[in-house]
Amino acid sequence: MYRTHTCGDLRISDNNKNVTLAGWVQTVRKFGSITFVDLRDRYGITQLLFSENLNAALDANPLGREYVLQVKGTVNERSSKNANIPTGEIEITVTEFKILNKSAVPPFTIQDDTDGGDDIRMKYRFLDLRRNAVKKNLELRYSINRSARNYLHANNFMDIETPFLIKSTPEGARDFVVPSRMNPGQFYALPQSPQTFKQLLMVSGYDRYYQIVKCFRDEDLRADRQPEFTQIDCEMAFVEQEDIINMFEGLVKHIFKDVKGIDYTDFVDRMTWEDAMWQYGNDKPDIRFDMKVCNLKKPATVFTDKKDNADLINGVDFKVFDEAETVVAIAVPGCSEYSRKQTDELTEWVKRPQIGMKGMVFIKANADGTFKSSVDKFYSEDKLKAIADAASAKAGDLILILAGAEERTRKAISDLRMYMAERLGLRRDDEFKLLWVIDFPLFEYDEEGNRWVARHHPFTAPKPDHINIMINNDPAIKDATKYLEHPYANIKANAYDMVLNGNEVGGGSIRIYQRELQEKMFAALGMDAEEQQHKFGFLLGAFEYGAPPHGGIAFGFDRLCAIIGGSEGIRDFIAFPKNNSGRDVMLDAPATIDDRQFAELQIKLDLKD
Amino acid sequence: MYRTHTCGDLRISDNNKNVTLAGWVQTVRKFGSITFVDLRDRYGITQLLFSENLNAALDANPLGREYVLQVKGTVNERSSKNANIPTGEIEITVTEFKILNKSAVPPFTIQDDTDGGDDIRMKYRFLDLRRNAVKKNLELRYSINRSARNYLHANNFMDIETPFLIKSTPEGARDFVVPSRMNPGQFYALPQSPQTFKQLLMVSGYDRYYQIVKCFRDEDLRADRQPEFTQIDCEMAFVEQEDIINMFEGLVKHIFKDVKGIDYTDFVDRMTWEDAMWQYGNDKPDIRFDMKVCNLKKPATVFTDKKDNADLINGVDFKVFDEAETVVAIAVPGCSEYSRKQTDELTEWVKRPQIGMKGMVFIKANADGTFKSSVDKFYSEDKLKAIADAASAKAGDLILILAGAEERTRKAISDLRMYMAERLGLRRDDEFKLLWVIDFPLFEYDEEGNRWVARHHPFTAPKPDHINIMINNDPAIKDATKYLEHPYANIKANAYDMVLNGNEVGGGSIRIYQRELQEKMFAALGMDAEEQQHKFGFLLGAFEYGAPPHGGIAFGFDRLCAIIGGSEGIRDFIAFPKNNSGRDVMLDAPATIDDRQFAELQIKLDLKD
Repeated sequence: MYRTHTCGDLRISDNNKNVTLAGWVQTVRKFGSITFVDLRDRYGITQLLFSENLNAALDANPLGREYVLQVKGTVNERSSKNANIPTGEIEITVTEFKILNKSAVPPFTIQDDTDGGDDIRMKYRFLDLRRNAVKKNLELRYSINRSARNYLHANNFMDIETPFLIKSTPEGARDFVVPSRMNPGQFYALPQSPQTFKQLLMVSGYDRYYQIVKCFRDEDLRADRQPEFTQIDCEMAFVEQEDIINMFEGLVKHIFKDVKGIDYTDFVDRMTWEDAMWQYGNDKPDIRFDMKVCNLKKPATVFTDKKDNADLINGVDFKVFDEAETVVAIAVPGCSEYSRKQTDELTEWVKRPQIGMKGMVFIKANADGTFKSSVDKFYSEDKLKAIADAASAKAGDLILILAGAEERTRKAISDLRMYMAERLGLRRDDEFKLLWVIDFPLFEYDEEGNRWVARHHPFTAPKPDHINIMINNDPAIKDATKYLEHPYANIKANAYDMVLNGNEVGGGSIRIYQRELQEKMFAALGMDAEEQQHKFGFLLGAFEYGAPPHGGIAFGFDRLCAIIGGSEGIRDFIAFPKNNSGRDVMLDAPATIDDRQFAELQIKLDLKD
Repeated sequence: MYRTHTCGDLRISDNNKNVTLAGWVQTVRKFGSITFVDLRDRYGITQLLFSENLNAALDANPLGREYVLQVKGTVNERSSKNANIPTGEIEITVTEFKILNKSAVPPFTIQDDTDGGDDIRMKYRFLDLRRNAVKKNLELRYSINRSARNYLHANNFMDIETPFLIKSTPEGARDFVVPSRMNPGQFYALPQSPQTFKQLLMVSGYDRYYQIVKCFRDEDLRADRQPEFTQIDCEMAFVEQEDIINMFEGLVKHIFKDVKGIDYTDFVDRMTWEDAMWQYGNDKPDIRFDMKVCNLKKPATVFTDKKDNADLINGVDFKVFDEAETVVAIAVPGCSEYSRKQTDELTEWVKRPQIGMKGMVFIKANADGTFKSSVDKFYSEDKLKAIADAASAKAGDLILILAGAEERTRKAISDLRMYMAERLGLRRDDEFKLLWVIDFPLFEYDEEGNRWVARHHPFTAPKPDHINIMINNDPAIKDATKYLEHPYANIKANAYDMVLNGNEVGGGSIRIYQRELQEKMFAALGMDAEEQQHKFGFLLGAFEYGAPPHGGIAFGFDRLCAIIGGSEGIRDFIAFPKNNSGRDVMLDAPATIDDRQFAELQIKLDLKD
């Protein structure tokens, strides 16, 4: 053993002990004839004191940053104590030292506020991982992992490993594939999730399954996506939606308690997908703050059960609103005194291509009770007040109004709401607000193919009282322009998403467990009997031998860790992440393979020019 | 919720409770006007009683094997109790029932002694997993997983996930590769182990790492190999061999205690690789029984420190021994009365191609103190006695002697020893014997390339006092016939294998952590500087920035589970295993992929007719 204690162990109660430590040189400070060294390891930092008698040895073996050092010495009380670190009352008076390994000068400083840019830190990830900021993230990740396992174990869940080399059944996302040398011309696929396996386990009677497991999706990467990612994957048999919601609300609350010390006792609200879209323009609303969407005008074809406030804006011949499909507003708290420059900035913001609005209307609900707007020539102060009231604005608020095509405008108001919340500091890292979003549409319309696609996945069951709508109707869409009138458009899924602070951290559903219904689902998605058999014959087969009712959920583990860690970027919660091109710049992977490998796999490249 | 209790919950103390159960119909037995049903789930079996009043309903909805059934009813004391099951004192008097799902007749019986062959059980794996025998294995696997995690957590190890999409650096085994769509012409590899990543984590200061993780090797499969397998992968910094041995002996003892209730307090022996080969002909000896190898004759070039008993067999002009490189014997306890037929059978056994011996000599150490052999015309009874004594034979033992080329003969005597132990019932499933094998050769000679290959892997350090032999000598082998005289042939590795009941369940080493030594190792394996940089530049780079001394171990989790479960076949300890052609016959994977996938990946097939 190279050490008797770690660099985080020793306290004043260890005074006079003879100890051996090993770690990395964080800093070297020479004061006259004595030298102080901060020695660092995973557990902390301990101050070392090299007295005059070691000067010759130090001259012969000079210490540098990040050198690996072993010292023997005695624990002594410090003269000048450091209250900021747990070992701050003591130091080690070194009697012997040995350099275990040298270090070149690191390309960036190993400190919380490092001088290294993203690229260099990714290339030297093994050095970046030494930084306390990154270490804390990985420690948090492990705590969450451990906490989740303990909860699931206590609730009778079994961790059962499912295979990684499976069959390619591309549905939504693209599969990564693996050529099989022993079966030339054939390929395995890496799992996008263990979905069908966990369902088979339910058929096999393992009624509570979990796994913390890598999954793979070959998608074009956005900033916050990785080609390989980790799920907390769970499934239960003999359950209904309510059972799943209770069990997994419990899981997240357990994690909050374990890793953040937070007693999350609030009731977790449930919101239908339709309400979420209506009130927040978003199916994963951040409910830490209010600013609900005021629907001033909606198209006739959607939200058919909802009532808009079109009477408040109609009849003044304001073409922008009159010609828009949708007009929506939010009341931004306390911003009525925004200057012209500031409102112009917001207008520019919503006109950016990512948002895509043509302009923005605002109403200032002044502190003195008056109203002022960018559309004063169309709307009287009374009308402005009525709109402001509809948007639940209080004196001092700034009402922002967007108008345009339904889908784009609704997304834009949601983006604007989030942007304003960010600006106003309403999205606090240390505040956690859970929400279940339920009753998603089962199908989405695919314009290109004029057909239905599964919004969640093809194994999600319809709401119990919508099963017959699915069974009794032909999924074919005769008139593409009237797809919204097709009975399938209104089938709701028995599905649920867990939303944390405006992020979807988990999602799942009650599954189909009847062969006929599953076949109907596959058919609705455009799969003929042969394709069904080829891709999912094993599952259809399994459903013939006594499949129990079942359902489950999967949490995006990387994102869950990031959000609990107070960040929305997942990359620093992954030990060895890939960049946006799917490259590991440290390894320099992916890379070419050699001719022998091509020959053995019986494949060759077929590069487009 | 579909049930108030599981099928394993209810006891006589629940008498008169109204309950709801759900599960699978195991058996249906009709006695006159009443019907008994055994209802099964993961937790047990509960007897259901359908009285006369339900006959009409049962006629309308007949129950079959493996139907999924929900019942409401009352817990009652049974008239005829079943002491074999925990719920055996009660039954449920059913008031209502509902068939949740029907089942076709399963292709084999869902019982411990099933009538299904291997192939059909693999195809219908979801049904095979219902059998108690398989379920117990998966439950054991989960218990071991949980126990290992708890021990490692208590010892400050952190579970840190390493990537699955890495870089192909084929050394020993073949990599599975994954074409990258986003980087056309380039491939990821699936990890054969997280070896280099865990070493990087040590460089990063995470001094105790573990992971229970899938690994991948594209090898031709033997009966007991899987293309994907699971490791308990561990690494520690600032440690020497002794630290690792203590920590992981502790792990396995902890598992024994947790999952088998066994207090393994015996000292775990350590045996050098040389002693293991000398005494057992095998580097993973089963030491539950004795039958050590008696070395009657060895070649001059190997085991140079060991003394054989050549004087006992020489000088009688027995050509078979005189011309053999190696002559080895074992004394099989209590078999001196084997008939001619039985010894002939053994001779045939060693002549099988897998063993490859030309014949077998035997000596019977009769119970009356006399000796009789198949070579009586060459050896006097005194000489036979001397050989028997050298083999530690007691009266009543049968001494079996093999002669031939060193490598093959030594393996053959080991195989024969194991075969005889199996025959004699000396390999007991419920007896566990651990052993560390240490001091392996660092290199193996590769005849084809006339060069060295790493016996363990290229990151294993030599024994501390052998480092200089490695540094100070040129690895090139000038004279292939004299490779054994090359200084590298005698370098021992700082490596250790954990052997359990004759199976290697874990293996590891202290690693190289100095850049120069690692470069020397790569060079010894025939890698020039460019290739080193291309394949392992990141690791060599990391070693420049303060790499600490470190080492680790990996346990073959599938095998560990199997052996603790009293089996040597790993397949039934894996939920969804592949067959010997690497196929998942349930999924029918691997399979062809479609043209769009080929086009996107920019590869095509290149099949040899």
